[in-house]
Amino acid sequence: MSTPQKHTISALVENHFGVLCRISGLFSSRGFNIDSLSVGETEDPTISRMTIVVRGDDSVLEQVVKQLNRLIDVIRVIDITQGKFIERELVLIKVKADTSTRSEIIQIAEVFRSNIVDVSTFSMTIEVTGNQDKVTAIISMLSIFGIQEIARTGTVALLRDSVPK
Amino acid sequence: MSTPQKHTISALVENHFGVLCRISGLFSSRGFNIDSLSVGETEDPTISRMTIVVRGDDSVLEQVVKQLNRLIDVIRVIDITQGKFIERELVLIKVKADTSTRSEIIQIAEVFRSNIVDVSTFSMTIEVTGNQDKVTAIISMLSIFGIQEIARTGTVALLRDSVPK
Repeated sequence: MSTPQKHTISALVENHFGVLCRISGLFSSRGFNIDSLSVGETEDPTISRMTIVVRGDDSVLEQVVKQLNRLIDVIRVIDITQGKFIERELVLIKVKADTSTRSEIIQIAEVFRSNIVDVSTFSMTIEVTGNQDKVTAIISMLSIFGIQEIARTGTVALLRDSVPK
Repeated sequence: MSTPQKHTISALVENHFGVLCRISGLFSSRGFNIDSLSVGETEDPTISRMTIVVRGDDSVLEQVVKQLNRLIDVIRVIDITQGKFIERELVLIKVKADTSTRSEIIQIAEVFRSNIVDVSTFSMTIEVTGNQDKVTAIISMLSIFGIQEIARTGTVALLRDSVPK
């Protein structure tokens, strides 16, 4: 079986955290794997935007999105993957580093246009933003030094206006 | 009453999404407001890191953290706010823009070291990373042009190694 296609779902919801459980629960119960999830305020503080990256059957997903749109507290759910979109994720990576490896790590950080946000005698912490492929690539490059901790925000996404709808 | 202090909670959990509901539910039922929540994979794909920013009573929070540490599927929960930490958030902001406002928006984006990731005849999309204060500041600067959409990842945080523990 081929790997199920990844979908990025963007949901505008009332700012109650019960709705978070109902939405993520609906995906889990239909057999979707949730790759990442993030929730943050929008321009209106009573409304939050959830972005969920899931993998699973395309036709089932369409049903789930329809079902979500009927839930109380859900304002709008769209499968953003159907259009052209910008997707970004932020990751903090703490990697082992000493005097012998520090300059090599700095070089890798520069190539990925990432920022070094902390340094100690035994570690460095790097902040990187990009799509999932870029994040995966830098993690793989840094893993040879020994990754101590990672904190990923999960993907957020907005539709592009610069392409014809 | 003064505003309750903000706490950033970092939780390492087994990669089951039921645990997400149990953790966020525990905060809600104890009267905490959840400002943001993000979940992403760690260096071990079977383990996820949740970062939750909550506001509420300090002594109750200590109890909740202890309770969380006893849950099945929870590996470790810490209140990262007790140490020195790096916190970052990524935000995509789509703002109304035309030929008369475009250059002013570009200037603001530069001051905040943010990136313009999309532009159309009627809008621009800006990617900005930073702590909550920085994000709030740029949103407030851009709001005069008319914000169309915002997608915030929510905060992620790691303890700093560069300060004595």
